[in-house]
Amino acid sequence: MRKLPGIGTKTALRLAFHLVKGARDDVRRLANALLEVAERIHPCPQCGNYCDGALCPVCRDPSRDQGVICVVEEAYEVGAIERAGRYRGLFHVLGGRLSPLDGIGPEHLNIDGLVSRITEAPETPAEVILATNASVEGEATAVYLQGLLSPHVSRVTRLARGIPVGSDLEYVDGTTIGEALAGRREM
Amino acid sequence: MRKLPGIGTKTALRLAFHLVKGARDDVRRLANALLEVAERIHPCPQCGNYCDGALCPVCRDPSRDQGVICVVEEAYEVGAIERAGRYRGLFHVLGGRLSPLDGIGPEHLNIDGLVSRITEAPETPAEVILATNASVEGEATAVYLQGLLSPHVSRVTRLARGIPVGSDLEYVDGTTIGEALAGRREM
Repeated sequence: MRKLPGIGTKTALRLAFHLVKGARDDVRRLANALLEVAERIHPCPQCGNYCDGALCPVCRDPSRDQGVICVVEEAYEVGAIERAGRYRGLFHVLGGRLSPLDGIGPEHLNIDGLVSRITEAPETPAEVILATNASVEGEATAVYLQGLLSPHVSRVTRLARGIPVGSDLEYVDGTTIGEALAGRREM
Repeated sequence: MRKLPGIGTKTALRLAFHLVKGARDDVRRLANALLEVAERIHPCPQCGNYCDGALCPVCRDPSRDQGVICVVEEAYEVGAIERAGRYRGLFHVLGGRLSPLDGIGPEHLNIDGLVSRITEAPETPAEVILATNASVEGEATAVYLQGLLSPHVSRVTRLARGIPVGSDLEYVDGTTIGEALAGRREM
């Protein structure tokens, strides 16, 4: 249990004792749930998001806009964008970001899958939105992908950077204020 | 002392005892500094920022771009934008934001000063950047000012809203993700 993220030796011991002490049925149910995850949940062959069917719920939903692909680093970020409720296109999960210092190159990410998905599609998507994180590695990944995709896709966009909604300028860092100034929009 | 923000009865007492107990000279220096603030520091007649001369340092700096005015709610936000180091124009401090629930209308803010500054200038500024906060009141203030200024100024812009630099999508709220999607830019 100690191998789980955020769980140290003490917490692992506490959890283990709780399981040993508790009802056997509960332990069996947890074990079966874990087995089910290990067996049934797998990456969607089209977008890389997790799913338990042939395709993930987004990819198999015909009402989604098939002409827009939003590229994210991790599968849990699909949820963050879905909760925002403003996006009706498809996703593509890279499974990480380029990070040469950690030895993560393009070959470790689901980038080949993205390129073949775009080039082999019957209709080339109209737009690819690069929604990698606003960190240094996320930006580098976006720039790399832009170079790779722009010959194939007419519109490669990036999420806007700026002041988060509800924020006071006073509490926003200088770099973000600089980006918000550079990206200011006509009202 | 209890009237100062963030200082309750206990802290006020502690401060008072500290002053009574401490060196008389220190107390006199503090009192004189306060008097000096009360006497010398006043709003800049042009922009409303605080200054100790005829004009504030930004307004009297001839190297600043005289054709751009950045409108902020409070004087301390001038500092936030200055620290970002990306802005070379002038400022205008409103002294608050429109907030009908608190009884704050246009007449309570330095809005007349802004309009007369723009209409009476020998050269109309090319751009007004509305940098009010990304809160509900800040947005309402920006929309109000836009209506007021757009007949006089050719470009009225607003700071970009979006993902703050360095942030992970996972920790950004849904409304901000929605704004960042809506404001996405070509790479």
